[in-house]
Order: sequence, then structure tokens, then C-alpha cells
Amino acid sequence: MSRIVPVLGCASLIALAAATAPLRAEEGMWTFDGFPTDRVRAEYGWAPDKAWLGRVQAAAVRLTGGCSASFVSGQGLILTNHHCVASCVFDNSTGENDLLNKGFIAGQRENELKCPGQQAEVVTKISDVTDAVKGAYAGLEGEALTKARDAKIAEIEKAGCTDTRMTRCQVVSLFGGGQYKLYTYRKYSDVRLVWAPEDRAATFGGDPDNFNFPRYSMDASFLRAYENGKPIKTPQHLKWNPRAPKEGEITFVVGNPGSTSRLWTGSQLAFERELRVPTTVATFSELRGRLIRAMEESPEKAREGLDTLNGLENSLKVYLGRMKALGDPAFTAKLASAEADLKAKSAGNAAIGDPWAEIDKAMTAYRGLYLPYRFTQPGGDLYSYAEALVLAAQERAKPNAERLPGFTDSALPLTEKQILDQRPIYPWLDELTMSWSLSKAREYLGVDDPDSKLLLGKESPEALAKRLVAGSKLADPAVRKALWDGGLAAVEASDDPMIQYALKLSDRQRALKKAVDAAYAGPLALAGAKLADARFAAYGDANYPDATFTLRISYGQVKGWEERGRTVPFQTTLGGTFDRATGAEPFDLPSKFAVNEAKIDKAVTYDFVTTNDIIGGNSGSPVIDRAGGVIGAAFDGNIHSLGGNYGYDGTLNRTVAVSTAAVQEALETIYPAPALVKELAAK
Amino acid sequence: MSRIVPVLGCASLIALAAATAPLRAEEGMWTFDGFPTDRVRAEYGWAPDKAWLGRVQAAAVRLTGGCSASFVSGQGLILTNHHCVASCVFDNSTGENDLLNKGFIAGQRENELKCPGQQAEVVTKISDVTDAVKGAYAGLEGEALTKARDAKIAEIEKAGCTDTRMTRCQVVSLFGGGQYKLYTYRKYSDVRLVWAPEDRAATFGGDPDNFNFPRYSMDASFLRAYENGKPIKTPQHLKWNPRAPKEGEITFVVGNPGSTSRLWTGSQLAFERELRVPTTVATFSELRGRLIRAMEESPEKAREGLDTLNGLENSLKVYLGRMKALGDPAFTAKLASAEADLKAKSAGNAAIGDPWAEIDKAMTAYRGLYLPYRFTQPGGDLYSYAEALVLAAQERAKPNAERLPGFTDSALPLTEKQILDQRPIYPWLDELTMSWSLSKAREYLGVDDPDSKLLLGKESPEALAKRLVAGSKLADPAVRKALWDGGLAAVEASDDPMIQYALKLSDRQRALKKAVDAAYAGPLALAGAKLADARFAAYGDANYPDATFTLRISYGQVKGWEERGRTVPFQTTLGGTFDRATGAEPFDLPSKFAVNEAKIDKAVTYDFVTTNDIIGGNSGSPVIDRAGGVIGAAFDGNIHSLGGNYGYDGTLNRTVAVSTAAVQEALETIYPAPALVKELAAK
Repeated sequence: MSRIVPVLGCASLIALAAATAPLRAEEGMWTFDGFPTDRVRAEYGWAPDKAWLGRVQAAAVRLTGGCSASFVSGQGLILTNHHCVASCVFDNSTGENDLLNKGFIAGQRENELKCPGQQAEVVTKISDVTDAVKGAYAGLEGEALTKARDAKIAEIEKAGCTDTRMTRCQVVSLFGGGQYKLYTYRKYSDVRLVWAPEDRAATFGGDPDNFNFPRYSMDASFLRAYENGKPIKTPQHLKWNPRAPKEGEITFVVGNPGSTSRLWTGSQLAFERELRVPTTVATFSELRGRLIRAMEESPEKAREGLDTLNGLENSLKVYLGRMKALGDPAFTAKLASAEADLKAKSAGNAAIGDPWAEIDKAMTAYRGLYLPYRFTQPGGDLYSYAEALVLAAQERAKPNAERLPGFTDSALPLTEKQILDQRPIYPWLDELTMSWSLSKAREYLGVDDPDSKLLLGKESPEALAKRLVAGSKLADPAVRKALWDGGLAAVEASDDPMIQYALKLSDRQRALKKAVDAAYAGPLALAGAKLADARFAAYGDANYPDATFTLRISYGQVKGWEERGRTVPFQTTLGGTFDRATGAEPFDLPSKFAVNEAKIDKAVTYDFVTTNDIIGGNSGSPVIDRAGGVIGAAFDGNIHSLGGNYGYDGTLNRTVAVSTAAVQEALETIYPAPALVKELAAK
Repeated sequence: MSRIVPVLGCASLIALAAATAPLRAEEGMWTFDGFPTDRVRAEYGWAPDKAWLGRVQAAAVRLTGGCSASFVSGQGLILTNHHCVASCVFDNSTGENDLLNKGFIAGQRENELKCPGQQAEVVTKISDVTDAVKGAYAGLEGEALTKARDAKIAEIEKAGCTDTRMTRCQVVSLFGGGQYKLYTYRKYSDVRLVWAPEDRAATFGGDPDNFNFPRYSMDASFLRAYENGKPIKTPQHLKWNPRAPKEGEITFVVGNPGSTSRLWTGSQLAFERELRVPTTVATFSELRGRLIRAMEESPEKAREGLDTLNGLENSLKVYLGRMKALGDPAFTAKLASAEADLKAKSAGNAAIGDPWAEIDKAMTAYRGLYLPYRFTQPGGDLYSYAEALVLAAQERAKPNAERLPGFTDSALPLTEKQILDQRPIYPWLDELTMSWSLSKAREYLGVDDPDSKLLLGKESPEALAKRLVAGSKLADPAVRKALWDGGLAAVEASDDPMIQYALKLSDRQRALKKAVDAAYAGPLALAGAKLADARFAAYGDANYPDATFTLRISYGQVKGWEERGRTVPFQTTLGGTFDRATGAEPFDLPSKFAVNEAKIDKAVTYDFVTTNDIIGGNSGSPVIDRAGGVIGAAFDGNIHSLGGNYGYDGTLNRTVAVSTAAVQEALETIYPAPALVKELAAK
């Protein structure tokens, strides 16, 4: 629920990922150096060459808010989704000037608006550091292993990026610990809003249409990267090609898929199915209900809660999709059969041993830790600020190699930016979120559990959240700045009740993280590397790693699908919006659509679907044609793609994109932005 | 969500149930004529004889609200749970006189308060009508089968109870259609409230402690059955024995377990796991959140929503427990192995054939019907009134044998009472429930689905619910009475928007019921009977049927259990309440506990656990000792017992009861009711 990067709360900082068994056509989130050129040529009679791939890679942008994007002009102009900039529009809105509702057109550079917490990053270099990292933990296990590994990573990252104002270094584990790579990014921490349509144009159909198709959504926006107060130069941008997609044409999606779990073992999937997913579905659904009702209480709350509700419904839909996939015996049987195949092929290989048994043991241990680990980190933005300030103060007092991963020298600048950037806090919303999370902690841990007692003392969840939110001054960025600058002494001397509360929890959170590292993350790092070796041995190395929010490319084609005996066509048109509108939210026509109806070319392709293999984090990714031009921005998957976390099914999984043709029509006719049209048309 | 019996919405009016494979000790919800005397004697060295069982059966009461109870004096005094009478206390409360909050002590007969919609029933006769029912549908299948079966049932019920003012006849399918039995009840439709403690005393610990143990709950109340304005005579009552339970002593629980699914086939369980349970958990959780937030808006709403929230949280916990059980591979493996055993033993038996395949086919068909069937029946009390009035008007115009089950001559009196009894309706609550159910219908069916369009037209769920609730006059019992008396002409001429809405939906609901009967209920009736035959053939007939909200007896013993290496003791004491109280809801001390602390005997046993095998519907059941005295009222299971819907595990499943000793202390000291103490002590 927080927009600050969770630190202690994330299950494993190095995602377990691995190379995969026999691939289905169009499956794969490929690294650029592993792109399956031969396979694509065999399937499509053509494949991109190295120069093509290099040009595309140079224009690809990662947004630290969790999205993907691309440069589409020489002046740092960035295409992404509206839902990737909604928090920025929201943070720049007030009750009097509701930009989210009205839409935003800067018109000229001076009017472009800063996006709090947002940073744009472009990969400039990828180096293999596998030997260094594996060497650092050789012979170790459990928590000693994770400590040594993380220390080495901190050291490599620090050495790689000496200028942390302009660069960011990040070591990522690929293939479940089979490989470690150092990604170097050119970073731009001043990102501004250029153009956003009305929220309703982007969210037309709202949650009912979320992850469905046909869709009628203008889920596109433009940002611009600045440095030293000026737009940056981006000669290596993608060519804007505002044309309709053609059925069957090859498409490439370039972006940063967040995470997948396609090669998890049976016991990892069982943990998901039995513990994480149901807990998430039940608790998120309840929060959704609390929020829906609260937003009905006043127009202010309706506005102030919208961004949180949208994000929550998006997440919930993902988990409902995972629940469905994990409960589908046909789907899970395929996963089990892939696992059985790998086990059979690995039998008798002494170097591999039995990593499945090691993972079973780690998962059993993790089951005992999961609920306290999850629920001892309360929700709410103010609490997240407090937790991050407390941890930062404690960690910065240590040598770089001994710090928690979010607080190493290479990670600190972004953490600092996210804590200190000004943005609005709505106390009622924070209180709602925090009291919900505390009440769920008590429910899942039990009243008599020591962690429940630590969290609540003798207070009720409601009273505690009310007291902490009402008493905290952390909504003021100056207060956060003083605590950041003051370090541990300032934090420990603070009488802010939220800071005191975060301090009170921090020992227990650290103890839990230590226990999780010892019993789960450490063993998984070892077993994961063995599983990766087993897969390379069994299936060769022409494969893709699980997603890790690093740059990938997927290939596919423009194509509808068959469902319950009928064909879902590959595209919708702008005109379809008018047929679908009911007048009632969330199917009320965006006001500028209504006003400009006569001028709008209704035949223009609006949204379309492709067979590209994507996942959350790919939002905003350019959809690129054979010529290297951008013809869309991916913004969703269809409902079937939600199982894509565990496996890809090309007959049903689809990427949903908004076409550049529709965006062009919007820029020319609906939300006119002539300067932008001109900029996009420039060579 | 409605307190009116659902008619079209319930999946199957005849529950599929069946005899079971090898039993675990203490497993079983036995019919009185099938009580396993020899087994009990072998395990406990003693077993009740026929006379003992007869005495106990004569004192057992079924409450049509969905609970169990028992006569405990010669003047119609009934012991049950507080949560079984909470709706009655709530319906008799106002903002000025909040009986639910304060508790209620009638003191004398004239002050006893009528309970809307409540009826007490005592079984007087059970006859086997298997041949008649099976004969009626011989050679038929699908919807023709269910029609013929239901017509024969309506005929038998009508013939069995000519005086529907004093008797009720109900044909119940046992062993999944293996047997049909006619239950004849003496009914008492005037039931009044005698004594109820403060709500907080009954709900101390609230949802966090729900389905947990240790518990500190005074979940007991007393009702009285009246006829012709006078208390009835009940010479065959149980003896009130206000003593502490002894660890290890044998106990019997006598009541009406609602339903179990212990012998469902793999495809039925898969349907539960993949569709019904997750849908219920997600949607109920969201409703819970909406309600929690709404109740925070004002003290009035907090009071007015409480009864609904309590019921909802209770249901939700049941579904979360089922989700956990169905997701536990060790648990489901046991069920699968029992199925495999039965299949093996039935192989080659031509008379049995392959009922599993028939059920697989029926479940596949039902999967396609389930979501429309579920979601075309909106929530809310006013809508439920409207639906019941519409259906009753339509059905009463038909001959008895052609009516829907809830509207046959034998069923009509209770339906009428439930529709016409006066009780408060809170429009905000009805609007909340209805708009939630409509928005979930749209979410699960999809915006483009014809049923979504039928439900919503071009309105939003919120606007439609608001309009219907604001415009309806059905909260007024006189309006309902006029429509009931006026029949179809009055209903069709009504301009009440809720009636018009229910009329609009009724054709589609009937079509769906027809489709469900044809593809699911009909085939299940046939296959279920074959499975029952297979089980009788394989395991003999010394067995118990799945629960059907008919009278059963279970045996067990007073016993704690082992959990995560520690022993959960078998009892709590009244004094423990004071240790557990925090001052914050729902752990705030009941006010009379606080006031009377010095007088209360803190050593008195409060709640205790036994190994009896029970399920929802057993709430309020007397816990009876070897001597036939009542020593407690069952009010809950522990968290492990929630899997009891699918199978019993004697090492972990526990019944939770409030002891008569604690109730006696309450009657003497905390909520003094001297007349009641005297009445209970009388021979």
C-alpha cells in the first residue's frame, strides 16, 4: 500500500528465477543478449539484427515507480501509460484543481510538472559478476550466505557507480542465482508531466473492464526527463508511428517485466496457493470494501482515495488471477509435469543433488515465519516514511557492506528521493489503511500472539492508528528532511509517535528478516543456483530467466483469440467508446469525448491485443513494429494472462495496448497538444 | 445476507449426502435410529440405551433461524445460544433502548418479547418414504426427474400434515438420495425472548476470537415457546445441571447440523476449491470492509449494522476455513484416497456403474451455470421480500405439486411468517448490501454479459440500489401483507420499484433454475443414489448420512488438544475474562462483569471443548452428560473444525461450549434472574 520501496517486508531481495523447459511459441521475456534470433526467423521469416536490437535498447526507459516507457523524441520525451503517471497527476492535484479528473496538457516546457518520487533510468551497461558474487559466499549457508552475498553486491555496486548523481548500479540475480549481473543505468531524477488525458478516458470501464478485452482505454501519457533544469537530449529515440496495427504483423514489446515465478517448484507453488494468495485476496478485498465505502462519504474522499483504490484493484485482480491459475488442475498439471521432466533428466547428477528437497525444507520453515513477517509491517504512508527513516538512520551508521539492501550507498539516493519528495498525505486514508492492516495482523496472528501484542499493546487497531496518524508530523517534507539529515540521534530523540512506533517494531522486524534469511532466503539461493544448473544441463542455455524488473524483449503478433466458441477481435475503435458508454460510472463518456464527438474519427484503432509475453512492470512498454517504430503502449494483459506469473499459454494470453493512432487522434482532436504533435512528427 | 429463506438461489434443494468409509473415533452426526451403541460401549464402557435416547430426542428443539436448542423446564423454556437470538434482540432494539447492547431480562412472562420470523420445532415422527419418492421419478432424468420428485414430495408433505397450524412436514433426502424420510414436527410459531446477556458478554473477543479457543463467551440465552398466548407444557425437558465438565467425561451433542460435504467426489471438491469458495471469500471480504467502514460513520450505523456484520464474519470464517482445508494437500489426499478405495471396491458392480463420471459431467455443466445462478439473485432484505412475494404469488396460482419447494402447502406457513413478521429495516444497510451484490455481479459476469445487462440496464449498481431502496415501501409489514393477500394480481399491479425489479428478474431466475435442475440437480440425484448404494455395499449400513439440518446426535469427550507443541486446556474460567480484557473493543469488559467483579466466582468453568463432531446449525445444541443432564450449550468449533465440512479429524477438531455452571453464575450474580433460576431448579 505504500509507495516507498518496502525493505524488510519483501520476501526475498533476490528473486528465484530459472531457465525453462520446452518453450511455447512466443513465450519468453528475453534478455537482449539472449534474444532467440533463429527461432523468430524460423517462425516469422525475419528477425531483428544486433543493430536493430541496439537501437531499441537505447530508447528503452525504466520508471522507478514500477513501469516501463520509451523515448519518443530527441528532447527527452517519454511515452508511458496514464496509470503509470496517475500518482504524479494525483499528487499535483488539489480539490480546487483536479488535474486527474480534468486531464493535463502542459502546452509549453515551463508548465511541465515535477513527478514526486519518480525517476527515469536507461541501461548503459550490463556486466557479468557471477564469479565475484558466488565466490563471496562459497562454503557459507543460511544467514551467513545472504550477508556475504549482500555485502559483495553492495561493494560491486559502489565500485561500479562512483557518481551516484548521474548513475545507478544494481546487481540482479538471474536464473535463480545461476547468474549475477551488474546493471548500470544513466538516471534522470527530475521527471515531469507533459500530457495526460482525463482520468476517465484512461480508466473508462474501470475495475469491471480491468484485465478484460475489448477495451476502450486511452491509457497513455507523456513525461519528459530533465537534468539541471533542462530537457535532456535523446537522439536515440524510437520513431513515433501513429498507424493502426495490422492483424498478424510481428510486434516487439520492450520493457521491464517485474517478476515471474515460472519455474517455482511444487512446494513453492503450494505455498502460494495455500498461504500467500488466499491471505492477499481476503485482506485486499476487505480493504477494497473499506475504501469504496469511505470514498462514498464525500466528493473529497472520492478524489483523494482514487489513486489508492485503482492500485489496489489492479493488485487484487492479479491475485485473483493467480488464485484461479493455481486452482486449475489442468494448468498446475503442466507445471508439475515440467518439474517431473527436469527431475528425471537430473537424476544421478551428483553436482546437482536434490535441490527440490532443499526447497521443500526452506518452504516448510518459511510457512512458520510468513504471517509474522508479513503482518509486522503495518500499512499507511506515514508509517512507511517512519519505517524508512528509522531504517535509514540505523543503516547509514554502518559500513556499506553491512547494510540492508535498500540502504547501501548505491540504493540510498533513490530511497532518499522517495522519502523527501513533497506529495500530499490524506490523514483519513492513512488511518484507514493502517487500522485495516493492524486489524488483519491481529486476525491472522491471533490475539494471544506476542507479535499482535507488540503491534497493539492494549490499544485497538482503530485507536492506535488514529492516535499515530493524528499525532505524526511526517506529512511535512521538512520534518522528514530534518530527521533524514539528523540521522540516528535525531530519530531516536524524536517525539513523533509514528517514529517511536517504527523504532519499537524495528528489532522484531530485523529478527524476523534474520530468521527468514537463515531458513529460507539462504537455502533458496543455493538450491536455486543448483536448479539453474540442472536446467542448463537438461535444456541448454538458449533460454530466458524469470522476470526481475530488468530490461527484456518479447516478440509476438497482433492477434485476437477464441473464447467460449467465439472470436475476440484483435482491436477496438474510438467509435466503440460511444456505443459502450452508459452514462453511469465507470462507463460515463469522458467529457472531451462527448464535446468533440463530431470531430473524432471513430474508425481509428483504439486498443489492440498481441501475443507478446508480458507481466506487471511492462506497463508503458512500447509496442514496436518490424521497422522499429512505436505503434502502441502496452497497458494490460487479458484475464488469461494473469496466470502468466506461473506459465505462458499462447492460445489465450494476450497483451493489451493502446495504439499510437488513437493517441495521435487524442493529441490532434480530443485533448489538443499541437506542440507535442509537432515534436512527435520531427525526424 | 437475507434472513428470508433463499429459494431459487440455493444450489440444490436436496443436499447430496452419503454414507462414509472407515470412521475415525468420535466421528459422526448420527441419526437417532442409527446410533452406534456398540461402538460407543466399546470405546467408553457404557452407551445410552433406547429409553435414554428417546428422552433426549423429545427435548430437542430446532429453531428455523438455523440453530438448535433444547427444552430445559416444564414451561416451554428453551436454552440456546446468544448468537441464535441476537437477531431477535436486535429486532426488538431501538436507538433509545438498545437491548442488544444492554442485555435483556424479562423477569416475568408478560415482559417476554416476540422474536420475528422465529419458529421452534420438535420432531414427533420420522417415516421412510424412499420407495414412494424413488418410484415417482423412476425412468426419468434431468429436469423431469426433479419435477417428479418435488411433486411427490409436495404430495407426501401435504398428506402428512393436514393441520399446518400445529405441524410441519418435511421430506429430506439422506445418503445423497439413497433414502428419503418424512420428518413430522410439532411446531411453535410464537417464540419469545426470556433472557439474554449483554452482547459483549456473548461476543467478547469478537471476530478475532471467533472460531478460536480459549474463549470467554457467555454465548447463551433463553427463549420460551408459546401457543394461544400461553407458554406450552414441556414435561419431557432436559434436566438443567449447572456443574463444571470433567476432563475425559463422555458428552453428547444433540442438534441439527446444517450441511456437510464429507463424501463429495473429487470433481465436486474441485468446484468448491476453484469456484464457490474463492468467489465467496473475495466478495464477502469486500462486503465486510464496506460494512466495517459504514459502521464507523455514526453510532447509529454501528448499532444497526452489527447483526449483519456478526453474521457475515461468521460465514466468512467458515469459508476461510474451507479454503484452508481444500488447499491442504494432506487433507485432500485423505479424501482422494477414500474415493479411490470406494471406486476399487465398486469396480465391476454393474448396478452401480460409474456415478463419478456422471457427477464429473454434471459439475462441468454446473460450472457454466454457477456464476449467473449465483449473481442474478441480488442481496438486501427489501429485495428478498420482493422476490419472495413475487414467487409466492406466482407459485400459489399453481397446483401444489407444481410449485417450487419453498412454496408448497407444507412450506408456505413459514415462508408467510418470515415475510410478514414485523422487524426493522435500515435503508442505508439495504442499499449497501444491494449495491455491493450488483457490483459483484457485474464484476464476475462481465460488463457485456446479458445477465449484467438484465440486472443493471444502463444504471450503475450504486444508482440502481439507491433508487430501488429509496422507492420501495416493503419495509412496512402492512404493505407486504396487502401484496401477500392480493396475490398475483396485486403483485403485478404494484408500482413498488422493488417488486417491479423482482418481477423483471423472475423469468431469468426460473430459466436458470430449470437449467441447473436439468444439467446438475437431476443427474446428481441419480448419481448420488448410486454412490450411496456403492457405499452401503462396500462398508455396510452402520453409518451416518451427511448433515441435512435434521436431528442428529454425536458423542465425544471433554478434551483439549495439542497445537504447535503446546496443550490447549479443555476449559476457561470466568476469572480469565478479567485477565484477557484490554479495555478496547472487542476485548472491553462487559459492563456487568466490571460492576459485579467482586461477587463473581472466578473459578467457575466458563467455556470448554469436547471432541464431538458438529457443524454450523448445531449452534445452541445442548451438551448432555451420561445422566442425561445438560451441562453446556455448543456455540462454535475451533478453527480446525472448519474443515469438518469435508472430513473430521479427532486430534484437532473441537466443539466449543459455554458451561451451564457459567450460565448459572450469570443468572445468579451477573444478570440476576431469580425467577429463571427457580424455574431451572424445579424438578
